[in-house]
Amino acid sequence: MCPDFPGVGIHLYLDNYGAFMMAEIDLNEMEKVLQAMGEKAVIASRELAKMSTEEKNNCLLAMADAIEAECDYIKTENQKDLKAGEANGLSSAMLDRLKLTDDRIKAMADGLRHVTTLNDPVGNILTTLTRPNGLIIEKVSVPIGVIGIVYESRPNVTIDAAGLCLKAGNAVILRGGKEAINSNMSLAHCINHSGAIPEGAIQLIPWTDREAVGKLLKMDNYIDLIIPRGGEGLIKAVVSQSTIPVIKHYKGICTMFVDAQCDQKLAVDIVINAKCQRPGVCNAIENLLIHEDVADEFAPKIAKALLSENVQIKGDEKFCSLVSESIPASENDWYEEYLDLILSVKIVKNVSEAVEFINTYGSRHSDAILTNNKKNAEQFLAEVDSSTVYVNASTRFTDGGEFGMGAEIGISTDKLHARGPMGLPELTTYKYIVRGNGQIR
Amino acid sequence: MCPDFPGVGIHLYLDNYGAFMMAEIDLNEMEKVLQAMGEKAVIASRELAKMSTEEKNNCLLAMADAIEAECDYIKTENQKDLKAGEANGLSSAMLDRLKLTDDRIKAMADGLRHVTTLNDPVGNILTTLTRPNGLIIEKVSVPIGVIGIVYESRPNVTIDAAGLCLKAGNAVILRGGKEAINSNMSLAHCINHSGAIPEGAIQLIPWTDREAVGKLLKMDNYIDLIIPRGGEGLIKAVVSQSTIPVIKHYKGICTMFVDAQCDQKLAVDIVINAKCQRPGVCNAIENLLIHEDVADEFAPKIAKALLSENVQIKGDEKFCSLVSESIPASENDWYEEYLDLILSVKIVKNVSEAVEFINTYGSRHSDAILTNNKKNAEQFLAEVDSSTVYVNASTRFTDGGEFGMGAEIGISTDKLHARGPMGLPELTTYKYIVRGNGQIR
Repeated sequence: MCPDFPGVGIHLYLDNYGAFMMAEIDLNEMEKVLQAMGEKAVIASRELAKMSTEEKNNCLLAMADAIEAECDYIKTENQKDLKAGEANGLSSAMLDRLKLTDDRIKAMADGLRHVTTLNDPVGNILTTLTRPNGLIIEKVSVPIGVIGIVYESRPNVTIDAAGLCLKAGNAVILRGGKEAINSNMSLAHCINHSGAIPEGAIQLIPWTDREAVGKLLKMDNYIDLIIPRGGEGLIKAVVSQSTIPVIKHYKGICTMFVDAQCDQKLAVDIVINAKCQRPGVCNAIENLLIHEDVADEFAPKIAKALLSENVQIKGDEKFCSLVSESIPASENDWYEEYLDLILSVKIVKNVSEAVEFINTYGSRHSDAILTNNKKNAEQFLAEVDSSTVYVNASTRFTDGGEFGMGAEIGISTDKLHARGPMGLPELTTYKYIVRGNGQIR
Repeated sequence: MCPDFPGVGIHLYLDNYGAFMMAEIDLNEMEKVLQAMGEKAVIASRELAKMSTEEKNNCLLAMADAIEAECDYIKTENQKDLKAGEANGLSSAMLDRLKLTDDRIKAMADGLRHVTTLNDPVGNILTTLTRPNGLIIEKVSVPIGVIGIVYESRPNVTIDAAGLCLKAGNAVILRGGKEAINSNMSLAHCINHSGAIPEGAIQLIPWTDREAVGKLLKMDNYIDLIIPRGGEGLIKAVVSQSTIPVIKHYKGICTMFVDAQCDQKLAVDIVINAKCQRPGVCNAIENLLIHEDVADEFAPKIAKALLSENVQIKGDEKFCSLVSESIPASENDWYEEYLDLILSVKIVKNVSEAVEFINTYGSRHSDAILTNNKKNAEQFLAEVDSSTVYVNASTRFTDGGEFGMGAEIGISTDKLHARGPMGLPELTTYKYIVRGNGQIR
């Protein structure tokens, strides 16, 4: 099988995209192709905005069928990425994330089928107002338009993001990482040849050069929103270059505060869950705060539980004096997103100090207080400036699925437009529809 | 009277700020002061977020009293700006916008008092969800945090923006234009010495150098949102430099489409209102489209009415052939925001061509169809990609007051976070508050 570049409008037949992409593209030519992609995306977005829920669902089903039918082709292309990754010394964890198996391809297809079961976020009347002059003003949800997704190595983002954007009526321009370029190209090719989706609705940038993303981020005449998904370096680079609005999905430095009055047995369970159930995700905790009144009692208990889960503990001076197995935490540790079985622990005087700590060192993601003191709980919930604040539960629930959204495109650490888990409604905007019978001012 | 710099934390006593600001500030020193302002704003924003509605309203009332009490001082400072403006050759229209009189100062104070009557947008529970595992998830409106307003010459923005930001619980950093610097400084001084507002809640940048705004726009560690208010040049400069999310209040290229089936008498009234009632504002129309089936009949009628209002008409070839008084429109005219008694007119084949025209040349602000054809109305409302779309009413209603918001900080032409008129609720974001009783994953 020898695909053309999906949706780009130029037809290049190549054995190996990588070689072409890294070496042979002229920057002026790239600029022209990107502009053409932008133009196509805008036209497609107008088509998508008009589509019924059923039409959009049919697209999603056809996309799912297409990637399942082309499973072998996708795996062959994925092998090229895995080989290149090995040659370039990617870690085994990264290679595993990159790898596409029959099961994983089926999971992507099933993900698309699941999106068909979710409510259409477009066309909802959010408010209606009749003004004294008789004007009827409706605020109605509409697609955002064209969304650019800039992401790193996992190829499943190609399918997940494309499916969610399409269901919300948006055209999408995808820009994946170079490690997964062959996998991403094969996936984009399959869904674009599923025979169902409008031309230009889902396009993948076929170059992994930095220049391509730089140019993409200035295309504010075509693109309405950029969502970067990846590490801190990627996100900072996107924010500093983009003239298009960006919703950041930044790191998760989540903190749990164990208050003086609290069920300590429950607290041990929740802390262990928040740290250990899946340490590599953004809603796992990185910092633990313990009220000084219960530190003597709680510190050894939680240390024992953490150590039995192989968690390395970094403590402040006081904690280290209570738990000999812990090593001293530096100032930088409080800012650190370990994404690993490491936890920094600090003893604090009260809930106000806990709040201050979180607002200083946290990343505005998810933070929790474990307490039976209602006043402290309310102070914590009100004063911690994060997307999601918990009392007596694990931070691991900050997730579109757990919030009942059905699916998520990510977890926003920004405050504008969308905060916390972003589902389909967060991929829409609104417009005002005003009906009159001759009103003038 | 000899004020210090409001809220900055340094105390400089000067006869004339202008001289100091333009010449004597060292860039490193400026950077330090701006960072200190940012830090203060964040601390103030935490105080403001905790304030009750009554406390915030008391601040607003004290601010109103303060500017009325210091009316003479403000006028004296305003005179400096007017003198400098005259010397620098500002137009009489610009000088008029700059001028502060007793009545205008009272109007600003009354504006602040009016904001006290509006609903507090903070602390509203937007949705509540109980999950199968017993978690109760509330989505609650909260202040955004710190907002930077970058604006041009009209000094009333200083007071209006400060009042609205404060009522929504946000700290604000104001950066006005150099033409109004003495007026703005005097206003900021008065409200900061009203004895009511938290230190750092309302700060004005005391430098009008470009470097100051450049540095401000990179302070993403302190500032959550930038709202630029001014001309196209200002907005483009802000967008290209800012690493902070920006909500653009861009130009208004609004279009009205007169369909074949419509009450032509009503259409004349609405077109005249939308063009002539206040041609210098962003919701006035700049383009008129007429359905070809009624062009022969409607063109002379509307031309007569427009000419009697001294409107200069620029027409496409067909319109010019029907109306001898019109002059030919160039391609650039369709993109033009005249803000004046000038109107471009084009004859189109149908509603689809009208939609295409608006989505090509418009600025996504406000557009209207005048029709008795329900199908065409619905197509227009659905397909025009603008913040506000009208059927059978003047575009002049795109306004916070007319939408029942009570006040507006501007009209967003962006699609993210806020679209169309931005009132107090649009100056808030939300957070998720999750209450559990030990839930883990």
